[in-house]
Amino acid sequence: MLIVPERDIADLITRKAAFDAVEKVFAAMAAGDAYNFPVVREAIGHEDALYGFKGGFDRTSLTLGLKAGGYWPNNLERRDLINHQSTVFLFDADTGKAKAMVGGNYLTALRTAAASSVSIKHLARPDAKVIGMIGAGHQAAFQLRAALEQREFEKVVGWNYHPDMLPNIEKVATDAGVAFEAVQLEGMREADVIISITSAFAPSLMSDHVAAGTHVACMGTDTKGKQEVEAALLARATVFTDEVAQSISIGEAQHAVAQGLLSEADINQVGAVINGTHPGRTSAAEVTLFDGTGVGLQDLAVAAAVVDLAVEKGIAIEVDF
Amino acid sequence: MLIVPERDIADLITRKAAFDAVEKVFAAMAAGDAYNFPVVREAIGHEDALYGFKGGFDRTSLTLGLKAGGYWPNNLERRDLINHQSTVFLFDADTGKAKAMVGGNYLTALRTAAASSVSIKHLARPDAKVIGMIGAGHQAAFQLRAALEQREFEKVVGWNYHPDMLPNIEKVATDAGVAFEAVQLEGMREADVIISITSAFAPSLMSDHVAAGTHVACMGTDTKGKQEVEAALLARATVFTDEVAQSISIGEAQHAVAQGLLSEADINQVGAVINGTHPGRTSAAEVTLFDGTGVGLQDLAVAAAVVDLAVEKGIAIEVDF
Repeated sequence: MLIVPERDIADLITRKAAFDAVEKVFAAMAAGDAYNFPVVREAIGHEDALYGFKGGFDRTSLTLGLKAGGYWPNNLERRDLINHQSTVFLFDADTGKAKAMVGGNYLTALRTAAASSVSIKHLARPDAKVIGMIGAGHQAAFQLRAALEQREFEKVVGWNYHPDMLPNIEKVATDAGVAFEAVQLEGMREADVIISITSAFAPSLMSDHVAAGTHVACMGTDTKGKQEVEAALLARATVFTDEVAQSISIGEAQHAVAQGLLSEADINQVGAVINGTHPGRTSAAEVTLFDGTGVGLQDLAVAAAVVDLAVEKGIAIEVDF
Repeated sequence: MLIVPERDIADLITRKAAFDAVEKVFAAMAAGDAYNFPVVREAIGHEDALYGFKGGFDRTSLTLGLKAGGYWPNNLERRDLINHQSTVFLFDADTGKAKAMVGGNYLTALRTAAASSVSIKHLARPDAKVIGMIGAGHQAAFQLRAALEQREFEKVVGWNYHPDMLPNIEKVATDAGVAFEAVQLEGMREADVIISITSAFAPSLMSDHVAAGTHVACMGTDTKGKQEVEAALLARATVFTDEVAQSISIGEAQHAVAQGLLSEADINQVGAVINGTHPGRTSAAEVTLFDGTGVGLQDLAVAAAVVDLAVEKGIAIEVDF
């Protein structure tokens, strides 16, 4: 039994390793070789916490297990701990024995950023130069940092409901040597790629704010009721997702589907593009949209990569369990 | 983060500690202070394994977590490992951080045996002298060993589909200084308490095999389609269970309910008897029946007890996670 504590993870895993793990597991999902289990998510009636399990199995890598944890909204204020707390448990698919335990907090941010990056790699125009950010929180910085590696971006345009948070993402742009400009939502028309990463319950980005040829990654909607972009934008775009079942129920597509603007059959797995069974973008004017809902297999994939790296570097804690 | 490996558990936990933990959590469930999360159970398509998660939360003890694992049917033959493999993970309910990891194999047998024992304590006649066993496998030995502590039993009558396995339970009886007799199913009429612990898909014990005043604990049915006793026996008995939702869907009561012989409202939580909100047995002639389906909270409760004992004895492995 191997243990990789939270404190070691940022130094072990690279954005490249997270990207590769997520790209591979999206491909396996689309090929029918990997699937996610039903998600358990419970308001436990204590500390206003949401707690649950996201499990899955990837037959190609024999990665089996779950991420357990959730959201404890009072952690930061009352205990100086981050509010999202999770742990990944991996099992031996041949025997059912517990195999590894890995801190899941940093990994969650990294695997979410890797998902939008995978969509950019496979769906954005090769000549994309301007990236737009909707949202400027902790996750937004992770998203932008990873996305900037996918194209030769020259400029970041950013918008946030609270503009005083924009320096969070401006810093990422500056560190990468890319210009940054704070804009109104209309300013997103300049962008070739847009990442939306908020926890809003009403759309900010309207179809009219999006130019032809743009790739939009909607990364914030993971619950019934949340919404980041106008439903009409999904009707206009070619829509891709990590998992169709989640996309239509808790993802950004829930609204377009409920309004009859989009059907389940219109939504494609991004893994099919990776596998070459879907052509992906077919013209420079096409709007592509990735509905990133977040699946357990992403967590398991990056956790398995971390365990390999920790073993390689000799820092995994071994417990005779 | 505390770790208690499988190898330490048999020496740490006592039947008494398991009994007390299960009795307490059944009471908390009936009082509405503890609940089980939806169960995830997946045929993963590898090694014919069934894998999943049983989670729950007990507000009275702040016990939060899950048992993860399942059934690997080739383990014994191919790898000299037991086929049921599980691990319990406990979380800090105040923060969401992982708190303990405990081997779940021995605990599962002990908590299942504790459940029927709790039902015997609260539902069998005080003067019960003869206990009947339907089933003689690994689990049956655990069941009988625990049950013999609940009343002044003088005799065990045993039946198994494969009679050559009966020595498994005969040994338990002999070790406890109690007479043992192998019987036909009709011989169960002598019993004051009957435990059925098989994985059958058709009833063995018929209503006609059960004398007035008997307490029957049906411990084997945990899946749609399984059945140990005639549905008419449930119609005749006062029926109790650990969790009503499981009892009617995957427990022994599924058949009587499907046949219209029993309704959900007829099934009582055994915890209500513990709490004194249900009178339990009201006459010496009444047949009581406990449908033990097995819930995650039982696993969490005994695992929490094990962690306390391991800390007390200074043998819990501490990992700075």
